[in-house]
Order: sequence, then structure tokens, then C-alpha cells
Amino acid sequence: MKTSNLLLATTRETPSDAVVISHQLMIRAGIIRPLAGGLYNWLPLGVRVLRKVEAIIREEMNRSGAQEVLMPVVQPMELWEESGRANDYGPELLRFKDRHQRDFALGPTHEEIITDLVRKEIRSYKQLPVNFYQIQTKFRDEIRPRFGVMRSREFIMKDAYSFHMDRESLQETYDEMHAAYCRIFSRLGLDFRPVQADTGSIGGDGSHEFHVLADSGEDDIAFSTHSDFAANVELAEALAPKGERPAATEALTKVATPNKHSIEDVCNFLQLKQKKVAKTLLVQGATEAHPVVALVLRGDHELNEIKAVKHPLVAEPFAFASDQAIMDAAGCKAGSIGPVDLKIPVIVDRSAAHMADFVCGANEDGFHFTGANWDRDTQITEVADLRNVVKGDPSPCGHGHIEIRRGIEVGHIFQLGNKYSTALNANVQNENSRAQILEMGCYGIGVTRVVAAAIEQNYDDKGVIWPESIAPFQVCIVPMQMHKSPRVAEIAQQLYKDLQAQGIDVLLDDRSERPGVMFSDMDLIGIPHRIVIGERGLDNGMLEYKYRRDAESQEIPQAEFMSFLQSKLAK
Amino acid sequence: MKTSNLLLATTRETPSDAVVISHQLMIRAGIIRPLAGGLYNWLPLGVRVLRKVEAIIREEMNRSGAQEVLMPVVQPMELWEESGRANDYGPELLRFKDRHQRDFALGPTHEEIITDLVRKEIRSYKQLPVNFYQIQTKFRDEIRPRFGVMRSREFIMKDAYSFHMDRESLQETYDEMHAAYCRIFSRLGLDFRPVQADTGSIGGDGSHEFHVLADSGEDDIAFSTHSDFAANVELAEALAPKGERPAATEALTKVATPNKHSIEDVCNFLQLKQKKVAKTLLVQGATEAHPVVALVLRGDHELNEIKAVKHPLVAEPFAFASDQAIMDAAGCKAGSIGPVDLKIPVIVDRSAAHMADFVCGANEDGFHFTGANWDRDTQITEVADLRNVVKGDPSPCGHGHIEIRRGIEVGHIFQLGNKYSTALNANVQNENSRAQILEMGCYGIGVTRVVAAAIEQNYDDKGVIWPESIAPFQVCIVPMQMHKSPRVAEIAQQLYKDLQAQGIDVLLDDRSERPGVMFSDMDLIGIPHRIVIGERGLDNGMLEYKYRRDAESQEIPQAEFMSFLQSKLAK
Repeated sequence: MKTSNLLLATTRETPSDAVVISHQLMIRAGIIRPLAGGLYNWLPLGVRVLRKVEAIIREEMNRSGAQEVLMPVVQPMELWEESGRANDYGPELLRFKDRHQRDFALGPTHEEIITDLVRKEIRSYKQLPVNFYQIQTKFRDEIRPRFGVMRSREFIMKDAYSFHMDRESLQETYDEMHAAYCRIFSRLGLDFRPVQADTGSIGGDGSHEFHVLADSGEDDIAFSTHSDFAANVELAEALAPKGERPAATEALTKVATPNKHSIEDVCNFLQLKQKKVAKTLLVQGATEAHPVVALVLRGDHELNEIKAVKHPLVAEPFAFASDQAIMDAAGCKAGSIGPVDLKIPVIVDRSAAHMADFVCGANEDGFHFTGANWDRDTQITEVADLRNVVKGDPSPCGHGHIEIRRGIEVGHIFQLGNKYSTALNANVQNENSRAQILEMGCYGIGVTRVVAAAIEQNYDDKGVIWPESIAPFQVCIVPMQMHKSPRVAEIAQQLYKDLQAQGIDVLLDDRSERPGVMFSDMDLIGIPHRIVIGERGLDNGMLEYKYRRDAESQEIPQAEFMSFLQSKLAK
Repeated sequence: MKTSNLLLATTRETPSDAVVISHQLMIRAGIIRPLAGGLYNWLPLGVRVLRKVEAIIREEMNRSGAQEVLMPVVQPMELWEESGRANDYGPELLRFKDRHQRDFALGPTHEEIITDLVRKEIRSYKQLPVNFYQIQTKFRDEIRPRFGVMRSREFIMKDAYSFHMDRESLQETYDEMHAAYCRIFSRLGLDFRPVQADTGSIGGDGSHEFHVLADSGEDDIAFSTHSDFAANVELAEALAPKGERPAATEALTKVATPNKHSIEDVCNFLQLKQKKVAKTLLVQGATEAHPVVALVLRGDHELNEIKAVKHPLVAEPFAFASDQAIMDAAGCKAGSIGPVDLKIPVIVDRSAAHMADFVCGANEDGFHFTGANWDRDTQITEVADLRNVVKGDPSPCGHGHIEIRRGIEVGHIFQLGNKYSTALNANVQNENSRAQILEMGCYGIGVTRVVAAAIEQNYDDKGVIWPESIAPFQVCIVPMQMHKSPRVAEIAQQLYKDLQAQGIDVLLDDRSERPGVMFSDMDLIGIPHRIVIGERGLDNGMLEYKYRRDAESQEIPQAEFMSFLQSKLAK
């Protein structure tokens, strides 16, 4: 394509509402334009990227044996009533009535629709497993859409749904999808990690998120320094410290800590490190016998509520005990609670259980104990993993230590089990001619979000740096003074034709702009390979080549140029 | 692909609500499934066709220099208020409020959105002309969706919008789009006609519909037997009969025609052909001086209201005169009006103006005149083209005669002029640095509708017959007893791999079904080329080939098979 025939809507202005770099650059490079809150027009440059992302996803989904379908954007609410999600889903589900006053919604996902289709079309176990996918527009009426297409209201998703006779078959397709996703994100040229994610009530190894690593990510991801292990910080197991708990050396001593309620205040007052203090939190219990339960963590560790509620004594959803309940149970306010002589269950985090001679609240306002020790001074009801991992923790995989980086979730695979198939009674005949409820998996990729995430990971102060596989153009030709120099024009046009003939996506900048404007536009829109053609170079038989990530350009003899470029493109 | 990995949802049942053949076959062949009124799921076989249709459209749109964009399905109503269409568009525009009570609609077309984009992004005449297209989901809340995807509520459309400094540039892009559409529908393998369509108030040669010819079409199209001329019947000009009007030979005679009000009754009663009777219709006039006007047509011709309202004396919108107005003007009821001695303007159709010795109402209930003649007995205010063309009329292009066939509208190109650009104030600086309102064209193709139209034109009693370019698979391999014969299985698998390696879309039917079931499924889903592999044939070194449209299969020697098939595919 030639720039004269392309809406090159580059701009130097950064929109005031664009706080993340991808949003800023997608506007500045002319990839998207806002239409209304959370709604964006994709400009020609952006559509080229989108289509390449879609093509890679489609190829790999097809390769995995998934079948492409297309389900409507507009969904009848009846099916949502049947699945029970009509009640569960909040105002993010945009509902409306059609001209006949029938209830519909804009689909944020398609579990109901595909389950309805499968229950009608699949009759026998012989037809299973199946995996249906679509690349389709979705809508979520976000209360505060932000970050451009990263959290927009209308977006494109690749969603897939598989159906199975049993968990083993589901696991098999799940593993295939895991592999397909790895191929997809690799081909997209992204630095990503499959990350263990929360499976909620399903349990097991049944959910992975795929994160593009980028400082601007909204999620903290825990990695091992020495293995493939990666998990959401909330999910990563904190192992018990190795070895025996140190022996007690100090005597239990009550000290006055007037008006010191927070761990920080107490530590400053007593001149201690936070790791020497035991933090005791009272939370709502799950049983009538124990309506309040104590959780004890090291002062420098953070409570992980997802882990806490997995303990049978802790109420789900998680909630702290009320001030009154704290007073009833501990006889003091929240800032002075400690495990000593507490008459409620005391669940102690693995690291906290390894402390000796520690400081804790004395269950008396304005007082703490020093020299507290487990067993000698206070009992542990149970030890559990209650905290978020932190950098330096041993990796739960057994290899290396934890590092924490930020990630942008671009994909999610999930073993749904039979939630939807039970609700919608999606069953087929098994080998014994009995009706059997299906197992189901779902697999999503945020297609529009991938484009933004690719930018979050690949940019510099000049603009976007597209991964080769999804760049709107692989190569740009920037002729100097083409409109004044017939020689430059001729060579530029010839090169343009030659590259096109080889199936290379090439952009010829045929505008009569100053070189600086052309260079900065090509950098801003992030074309990986730049060729400059100018009189001076031609006098020496040279063309100029620059890789977008390189600081300097290279002079390449004209005769060798094509093979040189091909070697660059092949990388 | 193998059928074992394909949702082959063929069924013998014809749904009761499916009245047109494409709807029936799309259900029976497992191409679509209904989700709700006017909403359809596209099954894997259907998506394969859709994607091929889209690819052809995309290629030809790109070739024409149009740029692909993507605009949201959900549109803010503000822009519809600004364009004035919020009032004009009826309940087919599905409107709703988001969670913040702001007004939105599901886009049936995108004129407002693209015009808004262009007024913000295009600054100078140097950037023009531009032509933006998208392939996107649309929604029209049809009161009575029917004919499957032919008139569904949610559908996919390719819509394009071009912007220009002047009419000449618009005409140029319009002509390019006309050519691109011809290429598209040719490549889709459809028998189609570009048809002159109504331009409304725009006038000129500014609108063409593209019709797929099929008996089930909703529109009547007038063709020339000897040229490319084609127009909607409503639009085709009816030429004046050649030669002079015959001379009067009979005397004007009043005859009683008691209770004979219709042309048919009068003709039966007087033993006349309808072409001997002049039909006089009183309609509302456009001017205060003439609130009622008479239109006269030959008895066997139909009034064309679109043509009538173009006459400056006829009111728009078209309306017949009331009974009272008829009585006031003619002194009789509607069944006895005639032009003789009428005191209002008498506009006479070209063919009616050529009549001599004709019969007409006598403006007296129960009486007609015979032997009436223009000029001698009654005056003509004006002669005009007021009627629909009929088969056998001379073609207005000057070559051949009119034939009438039915068509399905699958595309429409239209010179919009400045309707939207004026309403939204879309202007750019012209060469003299003055703001100038843009000229605009729009160009649509009903992508999902094309699939249905292709079937309406290509089917037999066995099922669909896909045009080669959009068939879900080009070739199917049907092995006989593959699960019992290792030899058949091996050759089938090898052929499958060889064809795939050549980039041929091939379906291997690896089910253990009876041959009859496999054959009828492959016929029903319309695969153009069928290869049967069986023990008996292999004993003689033969494979069996059948073209979907042929009645008989052919035996082809194995050694020659590949080159034979290639010659068939190349056609």
C-alpha cells in the first residue's frame, strides 16, 4: 500500500484520558479513535493488525481440531434465565427489549448459546469431544471503561467451548488448548506466561490465564527463577519455611504500647522489624460453634483471602469480624489482638508458625507481649497457607525462588465442569444408552486486547514497535524527495513492486513530506523494517536499512539489498 | 477436514417455518440453526462458506483501493439525532439505554459513524477521495423476520462509504465500486445483474442494485433481450410506441355499462380486449390550482406510482383522490371516470396517448363511451411515462425487448450526495482554503444474504450445489467400507493428504455409515467434486469421480486421477 492511499492519522497529541501507553500510542499512531465511552473505531492501520491477530488465532484453533462457528451478538434472555446467570450477572450485561417487548442482551460470553446448540445437535457420545470456537464481537457494559481497548465495552473475543463425556477427555482438550495458546502467543511475538489461576469451586489444575508481561499489567504474577512455574500471586502456594522452628529464648513479657495500633506503629515504638511481630486478624467463621476465628500472619506478610476461605473454619465470602465481635472474643480493639489465651480457633500461617520470641497483641488495649512463643505461651489450632507469596520465597515447584512481575491477561482457559450443562440439561447418550450430563471447558482470547498488550510490551519513546507477525506492514520504503528525483521515484516504485510480488506487506511512503516527518511517522506506527532511498546513497550504489529496534541504520549495496532484506525478514 | 471432526448436522426434516428453499436447505444441510426470531447460529459448514465469501469481498475491495475499518455495532444516538435519522428511522432501529441511561442503538448501517470519523480525521482535499469499508455485524429489528438469513434481524454486511470533493470524483469511485461488485459477484459464481435503481431525490445515474437471479426473488427486474440493460421494473422507462397514432374511425358513442366498474367487467361486458380501454385514475395534485389530477393508462397497463409522482402536477407522496373529490371533479364514482370533458389536468401515459377508437368512462355512473379519440373528443394536458414496463416492451436502451425475471438484492451502490455530510457538517478545505461540504457514496453487500442467494440459485432436489469458490469444501472423498478395508482406508488417507498438500479444501468422510447415507449427505451439503473409493473400483485400478451437477459418475484410472481432478478444479 502507499501512504497516499492510507488514512495515516498520526498525531502528536496525547489524549488526556489516555493513561496507559498502549491507549496513548493507539490514538497517536492512528490505530483507533474513540466513538463514545468504551467504544472505538478501528482505523485502517489497526484493522490490518487485528486481521493478522485473528488469522493466527484461527489457524492455530483449526490446527487444534476446533471448529469455527458464529453465534449472534444479540442473545435471548430466556437462556440466561435457564442457566441462572440472569440473576448472577450484574449491570455489565446490557439488557434490552426488542420491538415485541421480548428480552434480549448483548452477549458478554456465549456459554448459554453454545450449550443450547450442543444439547440440540449432539446426540451421542460418538460425536464427542467437540470444541467450537468463534471470533465475535462482545459487549460488557463496564461502569468505568478505561485504558482504551484494554477495558472497552465493545471488544472482539475468540471464545471456544468444548464438550466431553468425562473429565479425562476434558483434560485432554484442555491440554491441547494450552498448547494451542502457547503457539498462538508465540506466533504473535509476545513475551507471555501461562499462569495458574483460581478455579473457584472446580478445584484441581483446571484454569490457566495467559499473561503478556508488561510493567503496566494489572495483575501480579509469581514466577520461579528456575522453572516454568507461574501463578497469580493470589494463587501461588507459600511453602512452610524449611527446618525446625527456633527454640524460645525470651520470657513472655507484657509491655505498654499506648495508642500503637498498626504493625508499623508497634514496630517503630518497640524498634523491631515487622517480621518479628505476629499479626492477628479476627474473621467470620464458617460454623455455628465458631462464629469468629483468628488468623495469625507474620507482620510483614499479607493475608490472602482466597486461601483463607478455603479453610473449612473460615466463612465464604470472606469477611472480617465486627468491632463488637472482636471485643466479645478478645476483650480489646482490633489493634491489640494476639493469640495468647484466645478462646477461639487460631489458624496460623506457615511462616508465622515458624516464629519464635515474637511480639503480639496482649488482648488488652494499649498492651503487647514480647517474647511470645508457640506451644509454650499459646496454642496453634491449625497451620495453613494464608498469605501471598513475596519475592524471594522458595518456589512451590521446588526449583528456584519467587520473582514477581506484572502481566496483562490476554487469554484464559478454564475447565467449567458441568455448571452450564447441568443447568441447561445438556446430555447425550453414553455407551450404555443412558443420558449423561456433559463436561465442558471454555477458552478465551481477548483479540482487541492482544493488540493493546502487544504495544504495552513493545514500544519506545518514538512509538509502537510491532512484533513482525502482526505489524500492519512488515516493511516501509521511505524515498527522499521522490517527487523531485525521478531516479529515487523509479527505484522506490520498483522495490515496492518487487517486495509486493514476494508477498511482503510493504508500505511506500509516497507523500511529499519532509524526511523527518516521514521517519517519525514510520517509527510511530511501528513498522519493523525501514528502507530509505535517497540520491546520496544511490550515488554510492547504496540503500539504507534500519531495523525499528536498532539505534543506527546500515548502508547496504543495492545489488545485495534483496537478499539482505530477506535474511532480516526470515529472522 | 474429516467428517469425524466436523459437526455434520444434516437432517431430513424441513422446518415448518422455512418457506424458501435456501432457508430449508440451510437448516437441512446444517449450515445454520435458529436461536430466536431472526437470529441464527452459523454452524461450522456455514462459517466456512461465510469466510470464503468475506475473503473474496475483502480482496476485491482492497484491490479497488478501499481501506478496511471497523466501527462498533453499538452506536450512540447523539449522532443519529444530528443526522436527523433518529426521527426518520422506525422501530427497526433497536434503541436502548446503557447502565448510565445514555441512549444507544444497534447499528443497521454506519453512515453517521463514518461521517463523524471523516469530519474529524480528514482535513484537506489532498486526502480525498477516500473509501472506507468494513465487514461487520448489523441489526435491524424487522417486525416479521423471515426466509432464514435472507431477512434476519442480525446479519453481516460489507458496507463502504466514500467521500469526495465533487460529483465527478464520486462518480469515479462509484464506477470503480460498480466494477468491483461485478468482480465480486462473478468470483462468487453467481448469475447476477447490476440493475438501475431508484435514486429518490438525488436523481441521475446514481444507484444500482445487484441482483442474484432466482425464481424466488422478491424483486421484478426488467432486462433487455439484446443488451446489458437491467432495471427494477418500477424504474425501467416505458418508451412511446413507434409511429403515428392511428386515425379515428369510430364515432364517440355513449353506451350503458350497468354495474360494470372494473376494466375487466367492462371488457367482458363489451367483448373487448383490455388494451382497447383507457383507464382513468384521479389522484391528488401537487398544486393549489389543481388539487386533483387525472392519469390515463391503457387498460392492460399498471400505474407506476414512482413515475407518477415525478410529474410536477402529481402530489408526493402518491395518493388517490377521495370519493368525494372524484364526485366533485368527474360527477361520478371511480368506475366510470373518463377524460372526456374533464375540467382537470389530464396526464396521459405514452401508450395510452397512442390509442384510437378507445373505450373510456363517460363520467356518469353506469355509462362508458366507445369510439373515443384524443384531440377530436378530449384534450391531453400532457403525455408522460406513467406505467410499469411489461414483457415485450421495447427496451429503453434501444436494443431488444424487455424480459422480466425475479432477483434477490445482494448489493446496492448509491450516490448519497451531501445528505449526511451537510447534516453532520463534514467539510474539508478545498484548494482555495475554503471549507467545502463533502460528497458521499455508500456501497453495501449483504454477506450472510449472499450465502442464501447462492443457494436459491444453485440447488436441486438432493440439496445445495455450491459455486466452487464458496463451497465449504471443494472436494469430498467418500471411501466405501473404509473401516473394514485397509486398502480403501490407505488410499483414501493418502489421497486426502495429497489433496491437502496441494491446498485443496477436502473433506474425508471417515464415518462408518452406509454408502447411501454418505452420498446423500455429501449431495445435501453440496460439495462440487466427489471421489468414491471402493474395493471393486480398486480391483480395476479405478476411482470414481462425480461432479455435483452431473447425473452420472465416471471411472478414472488411479494413475491419471490427480491430473484429471486438477483439470476439473481448474474449470
